[in-house]
Formats: sequence, structure tokens, C-alpha cells
Amino acid sequence: MAGNSFGQLFRVTTAGESHGPAYVVIIDGVPPGMPLSEADLQPDLDRRRPGQSKITTQRKEPDQPQILSGVFEGKTTGTPLAILITNRDQRSADYSDIKDKYRPGHADYTFDAKFGFRDYRGGGRSSARETTVRVAAGAVAKKLLATHGIGIVGYVRQVGDITAEIAQPASVTLEQVEANIVRCPDPEAAQRMIELIERVRAEQDSIGGVAEIVATGVPPGWGEPVFDKLKADLAKAMLSLPAVLGFEYGAGFGVATARGSQNNDPFTAIDGRITTTSNRHGGMLGGISSGLPIVVRCAVKPTSSLPQPQQTVTRDGQPTTISTKGRHDPCLLPRFVPMAEAMMAITLADHCLRHRAQNL
Amino acid sequence: MAGNSFGQLFRVTTAGESHGPAYVVIIDGVPPGMPLSEADLQPDLDRRRPGQSKITTQRKEPDQPQILSGVFEGKTTGTPLAILITNRDQRSADYSDIKDKYRPGHADYTFDAKFGFRDYRGGGRSSARETTVRVAAGAVAKKLLATHGIGIVGYVRQVGDITAEIAQPASVTLEQVEANIVRCPDPEAAQRMIELIERVRAEQDSIGGVAEIVATGVPPGWGEPVFDKLKADLAKAMLSLPAVLGFEYGAGFGVATARGSQNNDPFTAIDGRITTTSNRHGGMLGGISSGLPIVVRCAVKPTSSLPQPQQTVTRDGQPTTISTKGRHDPCLLPRFVPMAEAMMAITLADHCLRHRAQNL
Amino acid sequence: MAGNSFGQLFRVTTAGESHGPAYVVIIDGVPPGMPLSEADLQPDLDRRRPGQSKITTQRKEPDQPQILSGVFEGKTTGTPLAILITNRDQRSADYSDIKDKYRPGHADYTFDAKFGFRDYRGGGRSSARETTVRVAAGAVAKKLLATHGIGIVGYVRQVGDITAEIAQPASVTLEQVEANIVRCPDPEAAQRMIELIERVRAEQDSIGGVAEIVATGVPPGWGEPVFDKLKADLAKAMLSLPAVLGFEYGAGFGVATARGSQNNDPFTAIDGRITTTSNRHGGMLGGISSGLPIVVRCAVKPTSSLPQPQQTVTRDGQPTTISTKGRHDPCLLPRFVPMAEAMMAITLADHCLRHRAQNL
Amino acid sequence: MAGNSFGQLFRVTTAGESHGPAYVVIIDGVPPGMPLSEADLQPDLDRRRPGQSKITTQRKEPDQPQILSGVFEGKTTGTPLAILITNRDQRSADYSDIKDKYRPGHADYTFDAKFGFRDYRGGGRSSARETTVRVAAGAVAKKLLATHGIGIVGYVRQVGDITAEIAQPASVTLEQVEANIVRCPDPEAAQRMIELIERVRAEQDSIGGVAEIVATGVPPGWGEPVFDKLKADLAKAMLSLPAVLGFEYGAGFGVATARGSQNNDPFTAIDGRITTTSNRHGGMLGGISSGLPIVVRCAVKPTSSLPQPQQTVTRDGQPTTISTKGRHDPCLLPRFVPMAEAMMAITLADHCLRHRAQNL
Repeated sequence: MAGNSFGQLFRVTTAGESHGPAYVVIIDGVPPGMPLSEADLQPDLDRRRPGQSKITTQRKEPDQPQILSGVFEGKTTGTPLAILITNRDQRSADYSDIKDKYRPGHADYTFDAKFGFRDYRGGGRSSARETTVRVAAGAVAKKLLATHGIGIVGYVRQVGDITAEIAQPASVTLEQVEANIVRCPDPEAAQRMIELIERVRAEQDSIGGVAEIVATGVPPGWGEPVFDKLKADLAKAMLSLPAVLGFEYGAGFGVATARGSQNNDPFTAIDGRITTTSNRHGGMLGGISSGLPIVVRCAVKPTSSLPQPQQTVTRDGQPTTISTKGRHDPCLLPRFVPMAEAMMAITLADHCLRHRAQNL
Repeated sequence: MAGNSFGQLFRVTTAGESHGPAYVVIIDGVPPGMPLSEADLQPDLDRRRPGQSKITTQRKEPDQPQILSGVFEGKTTGTPLAILITNRDQRSADYSDIKDKYRPGHADYTFDAKFGFRDYRGGGRSSARETTVRVAAGAVAKKLLATHGIGIVGYVRQVGDITAEIAQPASVTLEQVEANIVRCPDPEAAQRMIELIERVRAEQDSIGGVAEIVATGVPPGWGEPVFDKLKADLAKAMLSLPAVLGFEYGAGFGVATARGSQNNDPFTAIDGRITTTSNRHGGMLGGISSGLPIVVRCAVKPTSSLPQPQQTVTRDGQPTTISTKGRHDPCLLPRFVPMAEAMMAITLADHCLRHRAQNL
Repeated sequence: MAGNSFGQLFRVTTAGESHGPAYVVIIDGVPPGMPLSEADLQPDLDRRRPGQSKITTQRKEPDQPQILSGVFEGKTTGTPLAILITNRDQRSADYSDIKDKYRPGHADYTFDAKFGFRDYRGGGRSSARETTVRVAAGAVAKKLLATHGIGIVGYVRQVGDITAEIAQPASVTLEQVEANIVRCPDPEAAQRMIELIERVRAEQDSIGGVAEIVATGVPPGWGEPVFDKLKADLAKAMLSLPAVLGFEYGAGFGVATARGSQNNDPFTAIDGRITTTSNRHGGMLGGISSGLPIVVRCAVKPTSSLPQPQQTVTRDGQPTTISTKGRHDPCLLPRFVPMAEAMMAITLADHCLRHRAQNL
Repeated sequence: MAGNSFGQLFRVTTAGESHGPAYVVIIDGVPPGMPLSEADLQPDLDRRRPGQSKITTQRKEPDQPQILSGVFEGKTTGTPLAILITNRDQRSADYSDIKDKYRPGHADYTFDAKFGFRDYRGGGRSSARETTVRVAAGAVAKKLLATHGIGIVGYVRQVGDITAEIAQPASVTLEQVEANIVRCPDPEAAQRMIELIERVRAEQDSIGGVAEIVATGVPPGWGEPVFDKLKADLAKAMLSLPAVLGFEYGAGFGVATARGSQNNDPFTAIDGRITTTSNRHGGMLGGISSGLPIVVRCAVKPTSSLPQPQQTVTRDGQPTTISTKGRHDPCLLPRFVPMAEAMMAITLADHCLRHRAQNL
């Protein structure tokens, strides 16, 4: 129980369901004196928002955040931020179908098994709409990190069998990412991804992919040696997002076929600063940041909700089929990018504060 | 700071360095009344122990645990267990080399960056020897889980480009795993893996791989809906182990190229019990256990310590080379298996207790 | 940092300032299936509300709670509750006085010292108005406890030098407490307390007192043996309330002059059930509940805000005086009672869930 | 469950029972680079040790600590400290008496109720001997605090009806405290206390008292505004100690009879530094340190174990009597002082680190 918080010192707690009145997030541990307003939160919320392009769901949610506390005269006070985002598009839908059937790939059955019943409207607490407030919290974390010279950029690396060419992950800019609706900084791959997504949608199907998220400017020394390794906390952060089935950093699963003599990144010194000549370690050694860019990837499954009928059972075990009417993303990746950035930002903000506490 | 604990209710805290007097683990939250003695811990410690076969390091550590507390008259008391494992094989080595040089792939540099200095003897706190006490804690967790009918088996799925054929992960037995020194239940692949490891060692190199860990008997309903998803806690657990660069469960990174219509596991009912006809979801939906086997995989890098010289720098940035003298595993995977089993057991034990707390 | 949560499994996190738009509390860990609506929260909020009688502040705050999440079809879902209480009575006051002066007895100076600046409107985060959402959370905890047969009643034991005669703390009823505006179940003492409070107010002064809070029906075995003793968590709970300078349970500070032979409560058995013949241990032995009523007391200081001028300094250290204009309680005790009940309820709800998790 | 840790960033976890092989404490969060050896721990352990004077128990325990980890070349490494203290004086006693009877005032019954059975040898986990490792951890915390100019001194304020005259709590020195065996810096009161304790012992009885603990040099700004108020964490720290039934700070329960006009400490400025002209607030305002000495008091009950027979029942409810044979303190206060100092030091060390993490 009590699993709705993330972080030790920069601590994010969320509440809300997709068809309740509102979502709220409390962020405990924001340092005082940081300029902040709702306008700082809106851009990432807009990147996460449904209805933003032809390849995302056409649902409409304005997702306008209201800061309820923790800001005074335009600056954070050091006391907890509460951010409210109301739910507007609560259609008075007929949920009798979903109420009694288990949607494949969703948490309907496991929620019933866990809690004995569930809020069946749009997934309730299991809805990915919960990430709205995470993205708001991530925007706060990004502001904190920016004061330390740290930037975070995520993008779509792969959709189906189309993989982007990214020569230098640490050089990708937000502008390059936002230059197309699929959020892939390789324009040629982006075009093919968009075509694939449209084709998949036309086939009443969905498609998975891989997102890559990069943090630059993280100084060496963040992360704890044993359980709270930075890589471990980032893995938890990413796997806490809906639809993620895999996490890797640096060379990732590629290490399985590598020799140590190739895989080790040699140390070198540039102008007296120690670094490595390559970054197969994805910016973390022994779970602690090395000063090189932190590069992680997430495997995101194809959307579970499909317009085509799927085999399932009712709550009492009778065979049936279910199909989801409209309004779902045929590919989650474009809207996943800001969610993953947010979780990386929250994780790094937490370790930033933990690092501050450390020295005598 | 304070990152040396794992779990909320079944809470494991470790201390110790590879060349200090001893490691100790405190396990807080073990339920009372469970039969337990040191003999329960020894088998997994023996599986993790160095020097167990020709393809592991030849270091000798008896790794005999001593239970200091929490057991009375052969049963756990409900008060914290402390388990001590002394370090015996502390060679009075010459550490001047490692003291002033950064070993590629190790945490030497990042520890220096974080703490200002480090215990340079054998990696100090960053040594994988720390997992000894995790394995002891894992053995306690396994006993607790066994009382709930839950079993955990891990094995080597891949070494280099050799991948085992495993038709049914949930059917693999401990006996099949322990039937060969590489801990791969596919005998034919195992033989080739052993040959590859020996060849790699002869070349003064090392090789990576993938381990798969399976939990059977976990009832539906374990795991929390949002941040403390079971998949998220398992990801953190695995990434908290040294040398792990990737984690996936179920279809894992394979979801990137999958269509939703293929990827969704259809629900069905067998004798009134609801289940799915396939297990691409690796036993977790919405981050909550579904009742199907939980199947996770970890990518493990090739051993960083190599007998051959590698490029690096001294603490003050001067170029140099370093080579590690003997006694290192050419492939970490065989000894990684009990470590990963332990972390899965600890994670599940924690969620077992959390689940108990939940209902009214 | 991140000090705005209380509890491990029944976990309460609050945010909000007295003159911001709203307070919000997230309660993580409420078991599923418990009937709950805003109407369950209102009675205790009304008991805490300003303006409820002639001896409390005359400020007006309706304190109507809105449940934003965690309830579906009239029952808790097992997902976190968020409760919103908006601030209505935000007078567009002239704060120039308080802005630059430190009010004696308040947190103005320590907030400035901690955070570098502060929200000076009505105390900001340090305002006792924050307890509004604690009282709402406490009402939820009380409902949970009631399902276990546990009741909580608090009352005013002492105001100034007037001490109530309470023969049997465990027999005091809510009706007796609410029978008068000072919330003292000894009617004769209550009358004198009211007269004292009115006299003190007429003198532009304030007066302290002692509240006693009793929990009945707590079964033996709640609380943890070492740091998380039930008495320790209750002490923290009560000292986390504004204006509390002391905590005791059972014989309390009276043990200082007691002999062991008098102070030990002899064990006896009644119809096979083990109990003690007296309750100087206040229902807790070794920090674990004994099955007897839990009886705690809090010392509450006289209101720091006074209409009469008090010596202080400005932010830059210049001597000055400050007096608070109207609208303050001359005695905090009557409105303190529901706050203390709430904190006891939250603490017990947490240990209730922890106890459930314990056994094999 | 999992209630054997204290602190967020300076985190102390203990394990061990009075008649097991050893106690161990893991301290997670000790900053790196602090000189430390076992010799730093011994003085406070000697002050806590049984058998130190004619008015304490005559049991003999050398209580020599061994640091197992976290120190390298005489300095802390930033990784967790483990400290081991073995139990030497494990008499092969006949426990059949205590095994089947409930000692009044002890946790025998509540442990049985909680866990179903208990380690009955000397109280097992509930034994005050557990504080041995807390005192060791406290010595580490004191070293950390000393680097910030903070000192902690505790002493006996009251035994029975004898109360010491202490004009300036913040001026009491360790030398004054250690000048007599009762640890009371008022020599005249000390003499009478010793006589009282000896008289009580001769009567086969025990006596309670009050200890006062003072921290000087704590800068303003430590402590969190809401739940983790410094006063709240200190209250929990003290109530987590055995035999403590009450906690107060500053004016404490004396506020009940005070007027606001007397109780408020007026602010003033001395050489530009803001302070108060009195310290009825005990160094904490709004739960945050004010820069004035922190002064707390604990009510400690008379020893429950008595040589004289006491009424009780057996485990199955049969009336009987029990008397404890020798070797118990007739008054806990002299040995309580280092325990309470340790808990204050641990609490302040934790808030020291939390404070460091705070600012942008």
C-alpha cells in the first residue's frame, strides 16, 4: 500500500482517476526561492496532451494546471507544491461493456483481483492519464535541474521496425524533436514512422516502439553505491510508466554479446578533467553518474485498446469479445516522450538533493 | 544518502566492504514463527560463492553466514534478523596500482568523484561481494515465499551470441539449472557457453550475457498501481545489481516491433479461474501480478576486470594502462543467477507483506 | 526536506498555506471497499472550524471538503484519496506589519532563517489552518478504525489552573464532550474554564491547557518493538501539532515520583482474557498496545497572537512592538481536541495496517 | 513491521536481542571523510554500561564495539557503518519462571500478543540492552555534530521528589554531570538522589525521575514545518527509549497554566543577530530551531523489575507472583542519560543533513 509516491527528498505523490473530478500532485522538497508559475508547466503538458496531432488520440483535455500551494510572489517557498489538473472531457459514456469485461493488456483484471472491485470508467487509477500530473511535476524538476546546468531531451528512437539514426544522442535538441509529430529527430525515419502509424491505425491496430531519453550536464558523483544506484532508480522510474516492458542504458542489452575489451570505456583526461573516450556505460559507473551524458531507452508496447474485436472473458469468466471505440493512440511513443522525460527529471532532482546532503 | 536499504515492509539493509572484516545484513520485517537456521542460507551462498567451478574466479571465500538475531529456538521471532558473513580471503595485496589508477568499467572514478576518496581495496563498497549478504537475505525471502507456494528459478539464457532454447520458462527446475556449471537448463547451449567462456578466458577477455528469472505461484493482485508497480520494483531490484545494463519482462524489447493485436494476451477462463492464453505480459498487467508466471531478464555486461592491459588514467589524469591479475570471472552470468533470484525473492516478499496489509 | 507526510502504510501528505487557494491532503493506503463521502468528514471539520462559539476566533471558514479521488460509487477504491478544502476568508489585509516584524511565539523568524523568506500572510505554511486537512484525514482514519471496533474521544482536561475530574477516561463519550463549548466532560470544570477564557480574552491575553485523548478497543499487539513504538509514533503525531510543548501517556510525568511497586500494573485474567488491574501504563507496554485504553495528554501553550502589544524586532533587528488585531482564539484547547483526535486516529490506522502485514 | 530504523538521511537500523550472540547497528548516511575509530564510541558506551557504580545493576558487560565497515584508513568513507557489540554475560540462567509468567511493566505480554511467542531470555528484543548500539550510533552522530559546533549534554533533573537546581541548562558541562554517579550537576541534589536510590534499593523497590537533555550551537532553521518538526522528531526519539512515559521541551507542561503575555519569548537583536530574551520555547518555534539552546525533558518510570514479589498471571491466565533476582538498576536515570543524549544526537544529525539538502 501507500505506493503512490516517488523519490526520497524531491518527493512526488499523485492522486486521481481518469474520470474523477481532478488529478492532484504534491511535490515535497522543492527548494525555496525558485521562480515558478503555471506557465512553466504548460509546455510539457501540451506535449503530453491528447489531440495534439493526427497520429494521437483525438480526445480533448485542456490540461491546465493550477498551483495550489508552495509558491508565493512568483517563487517557490520551500513548502510543498500542490498542482491540480481537472478532468474536463468526462463523457457520460456507457461503460456497461468495459464494466463487466476484462480488456486484454489492461489492468482491469488485476485491479479486480487486488481490490475486489474497480473504478471501471476509462481505467480509473490505471489510466495513463495519471501521467499528466507527473509531467507537471517533471516540469518543476526540470527547472530545478536547469539551475544546475542539466538538460533533458527525449525522443522516439524506434517505431515497429523503423529505427532512427542518431549519431550523437547528447546533441539532440528539443527543436529537432518537436520538428515533427512523431518526436523523432531523424527526419527521414520520422516520416516513415508517421506513415507506419497511420497504416497501423487504418488496420485498426497499434504498434510499439522505443524511446531514448538523454540527460546532459549531470556532474559525476550522483547516485548511491548499492540499492539506490542512479541506474536502479531510473529503471524504476521508467518501469513505473504504463506500457513500458523494458529498460536499458548505454550499451544496454548489447552488452550480452560484447567482450570486456570492447565494452569497457577507456578513461582519458581532457584539460585535466577525467572522462571516457566512449560512452557504452551510458553515463553511469557503479550506479553513479560519471559526468558523461546519461542515456536510457524504454521499450513501449503497442496500445492495448484496439478498435478491432479481441478475445476476452467477462468478470464471471464467460468468453466474449471486446473492441474499443475510437479515441486511442495507435502508437504511444510520441506522447510517451514527455512522460519519460518527466520521470528522468524527477529522479535526477531527487539525487541532486541527496547529493547535496552528503558532504560533511 | 542512506541508499543501502531495499523494500518497505520486508526491508533489507546491507553494510560491508570487500576487504573489511565482514558484511552484515539486517532484514527487518520477517514474519514471526518461520523455521530458519544458517543451513537454509548456505545453498544459495554456495551457488554464489567464488571458486565453485573452472569457469568462475578461483578466489576462495567460505561465505558461512552467522545469524546474530531474530531467531529463537529455531524460529523467526518477528524482530530483525542480522546475518554476518566474515571476509576470510583478504590477501595483503599490493594495491598501489589500483589505488592511483581508475579501472575502466569500475566505480573507482565515480566513487572518488562522489566521496572525495575511496576504499580502493578490491572495489571497497562497490565490490560485487556485497551481494553475498543479499543472497543470504534472498534465501530468507524464498522461505517466506515458499510458505505461499511461490518458487523462484533463475538461469542463464544467453552468453555472447549463444542463446538457450527454453520452451517453458515456468517449467525449468533448479535441478536442470544446477546440472551444469554455467547454469543453463538447455544442455546443448550450456556446453557451447562453457566452451565460449573458456575460450574468452584464454584470450584474456570476458563476455556478457542474459539471465532469465522466473517466479511461479504468485497470486494475482500483488504490486501497487502507480509508482510501486511490481514491474518497477523488480526493475529497480535488478538494476541495483552490479553489471546489469538492461531489464525486461515478458515480451520485453520485443514489444517495439509488435502489433497490439498480437501483443495482447487474450483472457480466458479455466475451471472458473481467469487467466490468459499466452504470457507476453510476463505475469504483470498494470504493474500488478496476473497470476501467470513472472518472467524477467537482465542484460549483464562482460567482466570489467581483465588480465590484458587497458587504457586508463591515474587519479591526476596521467595516461597509463592497467591490467588485473587473475582471479576474475571471465563471465559473470553463472554466479549472477543466485544474485538475481535473491533480488526477485526480496522484492516479492516485500509485496507479499504489502498485499497482506491492504484489505479492510 | 520532504517532511510533509506522516505514516508508513496509512500515509497522509498535506500541502497548502492559510492564504493560498486551497489545502489538499492525499491519503495513500486507505483500504478498498470502505463506504465514504464528504458527509463523513464534515462533523470533525465543524468541530475544528473557527467561529463555532463565543470562546473561539470569529473568523469564518466553511471548510467544506471535496473528495477528488479514491472513492467510486460511494466506496473507497484502494487508490489514494485526495481531499480539497478551499480557503474562502482571504481578507485582502494589510500585511505590511507582520511582513517585516517577527511575531513572538510564531514561526516567522525560524521560517525566514530556514528558507530565506516566507509567505507572511497569516503564517503561510506554519498556520494552524493546515490542520484542517489533517482533521479530514483523521475522519477517514476514524472510519477505518471503527470497522475494527475502535473509538477515539478527546477532551479538554485542563485550562490554566482548572483541572477537570475525569474518573474514567475510557468512559467519556463524544456527547459529554460536545455538551459544552470548551469540550470538557466535567460540566462544573467546563463552566469555570469558559469563564476563565472569557476573562483572559477581556484582558487581551490568552491561556494554555492540557487535552486528553483516549482510544478504546485497540487490541493488544499494535506497535513495533524498537523505534516505531506506538508511544513513539503517538508522541511524534501530537508534537507535530502546532502549540504542543509536551506529551505524556498513562501516568506520564507522574512516574518521576513513583515507586516501581506502585507503578507496575499487576496482570490479571478476566474470563480467560489477560489484562491489568490498573492502567498507569496508558495502554502501552514496551511500546506495544496492551488492550487497555490508550490514554495520552498534550500540553498546549497559550495562543501566541495577542491583541496587546508585545516586544519584538523587525527583520533587520530593530526593536519594535506588535499586536494582533482580533480574530484569535484566547484559548486553543477547544479547537485542539479534534486535531489531536485526528492525529491519534491517523497513527492508529497506520499501525492497524502494519499489524495486518505482520503474520506469516 | 520494519520499525527498527530511525532517521531519513542519517539512518540508524538496529538488530539484536539481550541474550543472542550480538547486537549490530547499521548507520547509513554518515558523511565521508570524518575521522572515526572504536575509541570514539567507548566513552559513551562506558557511561551506559551496567556495573559502573554502586547505584546501577552489577551485571558486567564490557560493551566493546567493533566497526565492521564504513571506515578506511581512519576516516569514514560515506558508505554505511556497521558496529558490532557482542553479548558476553549470557548466564545460562533458569528462565522457566519468566518464560511462563508476565512480568508487570514489561513487554512480555504485549510481545506474546503481537508475535504469538517471544524470546523470553532477559526480555529479548524488548531489553533495554538494545540501546547499547544506539549509544554507539549516537557517538558517531555527536562527532558529526561537533564539526558543526554543536554540543549535547544530558543530566538527571529529578529523582523521586528531589529536583535539581539548574540555573542555566545550556551551561552545564559534561564534567559537572560526570562528577557524581547519579549524573546530576547539582551536587547537593545529587547527594540526596544517591541516598534515595540506595534507600529504595534496600526496600527492594525502584524509583523514577526526569532527565534533561540540552543541545547548544544548533543554528536556526533546522526541522521541517509540518510533520517532521524538530520537536516532533525529538519526541519520537525520546519515546522510542524504554521506560519513557513523557516528553516536554522548553516550558513544557508548564504552558498549561501560563498566559500568552508571559509565555511568549520576546525577540531582540544582539549585535545584529536575532534572538529571544528568554527560552520558554526550548529552542524551537514552529518546530524549527531558533538558535537558542534546545532543552528537552523525559519522564522515566521506576524500574519494572523488582526483587519483591508482584502480582501477575501465567501465560494461560493463572494468578501467580513474580520477583526478579538481583542485578537490576533501582533507578534507571543515571544510565538513561547517555541513551537520551544519543537519541538527541541522532535526531539532530538527521536534520543537519536534511537541512543541507534544502537550499537551491
